[in-house]
Amino acid sequence: MMEEQFRTEIASLGEFGLIDHLTKNNETFQASTIESIGDDAAVIDQFGRQTVITTDMLVEGVHFDLMYTPLKHLGYKAVAVNLSDICAMNATPTHITLSIGISNRFSVEALEEFYDGVYAACSKYSVDLIGGDTTTSHKGFIISVTAIGEVAPGKFVTRRGAQVNDLICVSGDLGAAYLGLQLLEREKQVYLEDKNMQPDLKDHDYILGRILKPEPRVDIVEWLAEKEIVPTAMIDISDGLSSELLHICTKSGVGCVLYEDKIPVSDEAKAMGMQFNIPTTTCALSGGEDYELLFTVAQADYEKVAKNGNITVIGYITALDEGANMLTPSGKKHALVAQGWNAFG
Amino acid sequence: MMEEQFRTEIASLGEFGLIDHLTKNNETFQASTIESIGDDAAVIDQFGRQTVITTDMLVEGVHFDLMYTPLKHLGYKAVAVNLSDICAMNATPTHITLSIGISNRFSVEALEEFYDGVYAACSKYSVDLIGGDTTTSHKGFIISVTAIGEVAPGKFVTRRGAQVNDLICVSGDLGAAYLGLQLLEREKQVYLEDKNMQPDLKDHDYILGRILKPEPRVDIVEWLAEKEIVPTAMIDISDGLSSELLHICTKSGVGCVLYEDKIPVSDEAKAMGMQFNIPTTTCALSGGEDYELLFTVAQADYEKVAKNGNITVIGYITALDEGANMLTPSGKKHALVAQGWNAFG
Repeated sequence: MMEEQFRTEIASLGEFGLIDHLTKNNETFQASTIESIGDDAAVIDQFGRQTVITTDMLVEGVHFDLMYTPLKHLGYKAVAVNLSDICAMNATPTHITLSIGISNRFSVEALEEFYDGVYAACSKYSVDLIGGDTTTSHKGFIISVTAIGEVAPGKFVTRRGAQVNDLICVSGDLGAAYLGLQLLEREKQVYLEDKNMQPDLKDHDYILGRILKPEPRVDIVEWLAEKEIVPTAMIDISDGLSSELLHICTKSGVGCVLYEDKIPVSDEAKAMGMQFNIPTTTCALSGGEDYELLFTVAQADYEKVAKNGNITVIGYITALDEGANMLTPSGKKHALVAQGWNAFG
Repeated sequence: MMEEQFRTEIASLGEFGLIDHLTKNNETFQASTIESIGDDAAVIDQFGRQTVITTDMLVEGVHFDLMYTPLKHLGYKAVAVNLSDICAMNATPTHITLSIGISNRFSVEALEEFYDGVYAACSKYSVDLIGGDTTTSHKGFIISVTAIGEVAPGKFVTRRGAQVNDLICVSGDLGAAYLGLQLLEREKQVYLEDKNMQPDLKDHDYILGRILKPEPRVDIVEWLAEKEIVPTAMIDISDGLSSELLHICTKSGVGCVLYEDKIPVSDEAKAMGMQFNIPTTTCALSGGEDYELLFTVAQADYEKVAKNGNITVIGYITALDEGANMLTPSGKKHALVAQGWNAFG
């Protein structure tokens, strides 16, 4: 049993030993980090900036499937999705805390892989891991991340400021994460039916990367600041374009027109959509997990926004009584409905 | 089936509906709360103060037993233990985020009870609930709280500043929480053996309150500030006096002498210790969950500290090579060992 020698039982380190072990190479990037892991709490110093805070819980079997999610990717994604929420406030992520609940089916080496992903995301975005908790769970792997960010006073952006005639913008492209998930699910079924079949995932790096390793759009937040554009409303796309746009409309008390043919979709997603026979519009509207930024800007900002190849104008804001609609290329009007994933469905 | 009418299924509200329902009466107490629940993240403003952050995960069957923990108390305690960590940094708690994972065996009414406890703690300590996440779990109830606090620049207190000759102080009394837990466990066993037996919990309000509804010592932090005492090191007692004192000694690179007969124990704990035939010193040293503050102060602060009836001086700090010891009333010396609860034991 060669593998045995690479398995260190969690119990052999104890709770404090495990935390020390997993955090011993923890670097800090932020000057504002005064005290990090190792005391009752961390201390940060953001004088003159406002602090932005968000939190998320991820549960095995509900939010991720370890059968096709490498632990390193899971660690990266657990951080990335929280940083994305900070970006959605027009803020820059600076710190995270991470708590995990784990059963003894995980080895120390497995947790190290998970933390490698966490540290990779922290390092890429210069975010400091400043605290956390590690405990047992009776079943499955539970992850809770709290992310902290900073923003210049008054420059944060909520979901409720969209005004009639504002332009609706989205970063990157949509729908690929959902198609990546379909591909992983299909190959999982093939494997479960015949354990000799190896998953066929080659040539699908882009869509698999979209679901397994999403990137928070810190670059967009930085670009907006540089160009002195403050969006009127912003949200990140975790549940699908339709659901998120409806959140902005509801909170802002406005309607919208979305042009179907303006929704940005990658070539890889188009090809995979054909293979699965799912319209890419459906993937973009209802798929979710793209973690792109959806925001509204005043018409006056059009010239600036149009020059950024990573941002697409996909529609405009209307009065509330005009409803929230999508126009197809042939001119048909469809009412938008929220079809985002329901955690209690 | 009369009870049926009081059970609302979580699925009937949906994820967003459930969060809205549970947070619709959420009050804010802090002027620094700019944006609370309802967007991608919350925004707080603590200009000129340092921000202190801590997080904890509580898992059903590991950290609490719903058989004898009322949900309202559980909500209160989940908040209180995190506020206690903020106090242990000599900071004042101001905000929390709360994420929960729940299976569908819980009704909306059960969650309301839990949130009642959360709000009771928030209200008592003027702490704002500013964010969170609600998700499904396959098994059991999972709670993750992140607490945020503020402190004047440089006035936070770590575990590592204890100096030789400093006095070791503790707030309140110790050991009662452990005895309360023993009582609950005993009555649970009696009930499991004979379902007709009703638990005998009367006349034990104090020790039961200590385990079910601990209070963070915000009052001590405020008193220290008022008297201009900055402890040299501080920690809260979650795992037992012995383990926490050893943390301070290890981090500060010092030893200590603890006087057994100075350890504050309530009369109720003494009586229950006799009944269970467990020395109250053992309960104080190894029981944990008292959530009192353990701290060290310079000898010069003795006069001030001695006047506070809620603080007891229990020993002093020595050089590292003298070790960490407890002196019994008869003058015997025992080396302190950490016997705090091991989550992976």
